[in-house]
Amino acid sequence: MRTFDSGEKSLKRLAVHTITTKPWSIHEAIQKYSAKGIGGISVWRDTLEGENLSVIGREITDAGLEAVALVRGGFYTGTKEEREKSHEDNLRAIDEAASIGAPQVVLVCGSTPGISIPDCLKQIEDGIGRTVEHAEACGVKLSIEPLHPMYADIRSAVSTMKAANDLCDEINSPVVGVAADVYHIWWDPELEKEIKRCGDADRLFGYHICDWKLDMEDMLQDRGLMGEGVIDVASITRMVDQAGFNGYQEVEVFSKKWWAADQDLYLEAIIDAYLNKC
Amino acid sequence: MRTFDSGEKSLKRLAVHTITTKPWSIHEAIQKYSAKGIGGISVWRDTLEGENLSVIGREITDAGLEAVALVRGGFYTGTKEEREKSHEDNLRAIDEAASIGAPQVVLVCGSTPGISIPDCLKQIEDGIGRTVEHAEACGVKLSIEPLHPMYADIRSAVSTMKAANDLCDEINSPVVGVAADVYHIWWDPELEKEIKRCGDADRLFGYHICDWKLDMEDMLQDRGLMGEGVIDVASITRMVDQAGFNGYQEVEVFSKKWWAADQDLYLEAIIDAYLNKC
Repeated sequence: MRTFDSGEKSLKRLAVHTITTKPWSIHEAIQKYSAKGIGGISVWRDTLEGENLSVIGREITDAGLEAVALVRGGFYTGTKEEREKSHEDNLRAIDEAASIGAPQVVLVCGSTPGISIPDCLKQIEDGIGRTVEHAEACGVKLSIEPLHPMYADIRSAVSTMKAANDLCDEINSPVVGVAADVYHIWWDPELEKEIKRCGDADRLFGYHICDWKLDMEDMLQDRGLMGEGVIDVASITRMVDQAGFNGYQEVEVFSKKWWAADQDLYLEAIIDAYLNKC
Repeated sequence: MRTFDSGEKSLKRLAVHTITTKPWSIHEAIQKYSAKGIGGISVWRDTLEGENLSVIGREITDAGLEAVALVRGGFYTGTKEEREKSHEDNLRAIDEAASIGAPQVVLVCGSTPGISIPDCLKQIEDGIGRTVEHAEACGVKLSIEPLHPMYADIRSAVSTMKAANDLCDEINSPVVGVAADVYHIWWDPELEKEIKRCGDADRLFGYHICDWKLDMEDMLQDRGLMGEGVIDVASITRMVDQAGFNGYQEVEVFSKKWWAADQDLYLEAIIDAYLNKC
């Protein structure tokens, strides 16, 4: 994987999540990102259905891109049966990441109504722990992504950088780390401290950017591009860089509004937002 | 003010926020709550417009109710001008609480886009600090209510019990404490620890209950009654009781759906949810 200098912002350092340009197939996304000189692509698993994964992996590198992450594994909470099923799926996600040449799987850890947050966290710790050996064998890292607390009901009991760091401490494996997404963590008074803690432990594996809009109409699918909202992305980028992060800066936006736009123009807006508004 | 035994759940211990039954005037709310044997009322300031406050205070006590809190003061962040304006308003809120006989003002502390969360917190600390003397003179307490992080953009930079406790430590006045609302804090892995910390410092002044619905349609006005969502209210109530809280249990629900219902039947549903579903 390429690494970047502290403070560097360049098209080469930019990665885009395929979900961001959801209307495009994986082939279109690879071709379009590459044509703009973008350096990285984070691949959502829905785009891989029916595809030959090693062919996709070659297509990515042939286009001059790097696969930054496979998105997403996780959902470790629930009944014994649900947890077994998710375990199998998480092993598959690790295999898929290896097949396309992605160095990490991003984890949305899960939360189950009726199971307390502390108990969910124990199930998550257990679930990740069970896949560590396979991840190591495949050379794939596992990145816990804290989600915004408004998703703590069914998506993730891991709502803060502190909770993610605490989990990593418990699991204590060099392949288990954190993906920090500004949308989920920007509000946290402990943010700078926990980003530093994460970097000091060499476990900051991913950095996702977008924005939190004041006129948000949908709790899931109305994120903004950088500059469209209230997050001081530049300031969080500095914290992350100061914590030693030297990887890609990944744009991950779910937006019905942007998905309805011309995707070529949208990609230009993404690049402009990345270079000039954060 | 009445106090209650640890673990007590009774109509006498139940308080209702006037916003919960928004269609009712303050006079209707007093009369309706009282007729059901409810013990407390938390008064939103919008219901007081054009009213004689000491008359309202007498009306509350004559009905056998206690005024639990005046809701709300706060919004300490912004430009110098905005902060001066809010300071004046916060002094007025303290006066109003004293006039109706409410022992505390609940504070929604504010957050301003373009001002970082740490800087907002400093402005909040300063803003509360400036009103402490007046609050003491009036015999009114000030209760910082941590709001859910999804409101950190414009409503409150205080998003966790830890942040509220830290603020109280800094301000260090016996009249400044915390109102804990399950809707805002249920997701937090640090919850039990920070509730205990709050109780140990004798600063847990209020406890608000409602629920977080899985099918929430509106980030502001679609809260559930206890039992309609995923929050384990009973478990948080135990934490609060174990932390030494002996005050009212206040139902605070913003819900377009419930506001559209027959408010008498709704009040019965509130009582049923309080007695049987949390």
